Amino acid sequence: MFEKNLNIGFLLDFYGDVLADRKRDVLSFYYNDDLSLAEIAEEIGISRQGVRDIIKKAEEELNFLEEKLGLAARFLEAEQSVARAIALADSIECKDDTLTLLKKELIELSRSIK
Amino acid sequence: MFEKNLNIGFLLDFYGDVLADRKRDVLSFYYNDDLSLAEIAEEIGISRQGVRDIIKKAEEELNFLEEKLGLAARFLEAEQSVARAIALADSIECKDDTLTLLKKELIELSRSIK
Repeated sequence: MFEKNLNIGFLLDFYGDVLADRKRDVLSFYYNDDLSLAEIAEEIGISRQGVRDIIKKAEEELNFLEEKLGLAARFLEAEQSVARAIALADSIECKDDTLTLLKKELIELSRSIK
Repeated sequence: MFEKNLNIGFLLDFYGDVLADRKRDVLSFYYNDDLSLAEIAEEIGISRQGVRDIIKKAEEELNFLEEKLGLAARFLEAEQSVARAIALADSIECKDDTLTLLKKELIELSRSIK
């Protein structure tokens, strides 16, 4: 059984650029474009087993990075925290120019960690 | 000439856990403990040239990761943005319980991206 691990799609977005081109391409076909092993095999001209091996190795590499660094989880946590901060700022009922500046800063922050 | 690259200390904090133990130790002796090449050579029982080679390779690995991922720069940017947001929130002059909650959220956020 070879099941898709949905978490890998997230790690691929995050760490994909350190993978070798072929590994990144195969993983992207599989997770982003939802191609089957057979379709990927035909696309890049190797066996289905070859595709399976590349996916397995690339997934191990992504999992190793997140296990060691935990940065994807930290970014996700920060992203959620900024969303909460923006919602709080939006519900503050007072007129203060600094509040406007703060909201602007939070919007920029949410973009920088996306 | 073999100069210390101060940026490496920052990248070492950030990505150091993906380095092999020996590489991380040597780089930490050099950047965090400020030992000389000769001192590190004696400490781990290899030649000065060996130490130099390990430092060079480990630095290349850290630079590769940041070049590909840019996460250290993004975290640093987010950290500075959160500091600005906290300063703005502190200078808002109005009494609103939501503002207190917002400040608490921002403090937690600053911890999560440190």
